[in-house]
Amino acid sequence: MNVPARSAASEDSVRWIGDETGLLEMIDQTLLPGSTTLIRCERVEEVWEAIRALRVRGAPAIGIAAAYGVCVAIRGEGSLADLLQRAVSAADYLATSRPTAVNLFWALDRMRSRIAEGSFADAPALRRALLDEARAIHDEDRQMCRAIGRHGAELFEDGFGVLTHCNAGGLATAEYGTALSAIFTAHDQGKRIHVWVDETRPLLQGARLTAWELMRHQVPCTLICDSMAAQVMREGRIQAVIVGADRITANGDVANKIGTYSVAVLAHHHGIPFYVAAPSSTFDLTLVSGEGIPIEQRAASEITEGFGRRTAPEGVAVYNPAFDVVPARLVTAIVTERGVIAPVSARRIASVIGDAIEIA
Amino acid sequence: MNVPARSAASEDSVRWIGDETGLLEMIDQTLLPGSTTLIRCERVEEVWEAIRALRVRGAPAIGIAAAYGVCVAIRGEGSLADLLQRAVSAADYLATSRPTAVNLFWALDRMRSRIAEGSFADAPALRRALLDEARAIHDEDRQMCRAIGRHGAELFEDGFGVLTHCNAGGLATAEYGTALSAIFTAHDQGKRIHVWVDETRPLLQGARLTAWELMRHQVPCTLICDSMAAQVMREGRIQAVIVGADRITANGDVANKIGTYSVAVLAHHHGIPFYVAAPSSTFDLTLVSGEGIPIEQRAASEITEGFGRRTAPEGVAVYNPAFDVVPARLVTAIVTERGVIAPVSARRIASVIGDAIEIA
Repeated sequence: MNVPARSAASEDSVRWIGDETGLLEMIDQTLLPGSTTLIRCERVEEVWEAIRALRVRGAPAIGIAAAYGVCVAIRGEGSLADLLQRAVSAADYLATSRPTAVNLFWALDRMRSRIAEGSFADAPALRRALLDEARAIHDEDRQMCRAIGRHGAELFEDGFGVLTHCNAGGLATAEYGTALSAIFTAHDQGKRIHVWVDETRPLLQGARLTAWELMRHQVPCTLICDSMAAQVMREGRIQAVIVGADRITANGDVANKIGTYSVAVLAHHHGIPFYVAAPSSTFDLTLVSGEGIPIEQRAASEITEGFGRRTAPEGVAVYNPAFDVVPARLVTAIVTERGVIAPVSARRIASVIGDAIEIA
Repeated sequence: MNVPARSAASEDSVRWIGDETGLLEMIDQTLLPGSTTLIRCERVEEVWEAIRALRVRGAPAIGIAAAYGVCVAIRGEGSLADLLQRAVSAADYLATSRPTAVNLFWALDRMRSRIAEGSFADAPALRRALLDEARAIHDEDRQMCRAIGRHGAELFEDGFGVLTHCNAGGLATAEYGTALSAIFTAHDQGKRIHVWVDETRPLLQGARLTAWELMRHQVPCTLICDSMAAQVMREGRIQAVIVGADRITANGDVANKIGTYSVAVLAHHHGIPFYVAAPSSTFDLTLVSGEGIPIEQRAASEITEGFGRRTAPEGVAVYNPAFDVVPARLVTAIVTERGVIAPVSARRIASVIGDAIEIA
């Protein structure tokens, strides 16, 4: 069931409505920014479809949606035995929705572990236990985003212009996001922050999602083309850059959306600090540096007809790397839920993050 | 009359067909790259409309089209007195097609001067004299582009990857263009050059026009988003950057399409030479530096709905500067029809260009 969102009632892109017989509600991100439409999922197939069709996107948000998806599967009538079987089947089924989403598997494994623990008195007790587990996954992500926000906000002074690239906001996570969490938190603290939003070609996540989130939170922002960032820096309007990360290696190299490396070089040239905000789960300490990360190539059509209309000659060769790697020497600091890592070095990363990774 | 172009018969975007009773043919640049359609103008109103509607664009090409437009006005029957009056009226009329195009006025003034010189035996003699003058304007531009190409090609070695931004090719001028002339000439000399084409947001002149011109000349090229240039440089695929210029000041600061400054900073960071190709008429020695050039702001809709579809939230603030200024210290050399200016300094510019400007 789809309903138009009448107000920015929820801060979260994904949320559970009601008690353990309730339902899952999500913002349909494929319709942003043209329309803010909520999807209500009362059947597990609807959750599967929403994940598959990218109506929910961003690794943490997908994991949260999948965990709630198991709860959706057992909201109807049934004996305890029936519901246990239905919950396990739902976890297997939901895992097929996005075969490469690590957070999806992680969240579903956690739901499976809770099921395996057993000790449910009856069907309602099972429903309550699994909803509690899904809510815990959700809440831990929310707390993590808030912690990143608290640490990150300290980097911004009143009056700062802050540039961001792509979308590292609440749509992809619980509530506040990562890079945007630092901005939202500074804004909440009363600091006047003006955000410059790179549109982020080819898929325009900045224009479509980041600008939408900032406007929804009433944070002043201005949209620019990626090629304009250097000029805005030169005009003295930007005092800090902050972006999210897909993966961070042991030495502090940061893989993120294509164009992030360009922004890092431009910030360096203009003497502007370049910050990365990411949870400790983003670190991959098995990789010594970013050199070894293979760079995924995406479809040419994202560039040649990215807006529903062909804008380049038929048959033109296209290079479309999905992401790039910022070398650690261009990263001023990395903001995690455990604090700020600065300067960025293998030793400091290991001291802040090392045990978190070993535990995970 | 519009006809589909069956082959790349002409190298020029604007050309005269036949003798002095002939007609003017132009590529309709508004339909590129989807369709290569030629417009044939047999009435001066058609030439006016083509200039007004940007079917012909680029300062030199507009000047050439307007000069031929005067010839179009007198191709029909009439006495010498009739045609003289018609030619003068046509020059006045064509000057209203693009009120800010300096090259348009310059070319029409030159046609008026030729009319004022008089000494025409009869109507056919007038037609021949004015067609000779328009052809001279056209040919001088072609020679200028060729000279820039010869000087610029010397900067490229066999096997070079060359990045360009926006469109400084033949569509905007006679035949070979400015920055692309250097590439075409090197290619003609047998050097293997691979061109990396920035798509050039917001208006995508790189994707729409530069890629089209390079493919038409069979120069190997790859289209990228502007945000990918840094990554391609880092991968070692680019040995030189070359771009055109809107205006160059006495100290060598270069105003050009927005995003050019970004490319210059990225080239500097990667130790890649950054070249500018432009005729001496582009220099404005009355300006000491680029500091004083006001930067035109263009419509927000170019960014928020540049492809016929809205891709940003309603009401979002947008910053859309039309161009930026590359400081002379980031410019390795300026290629003119008079030779290569390197290193770029006020003294060297004055010595190569000074007298050309004084004559003009």
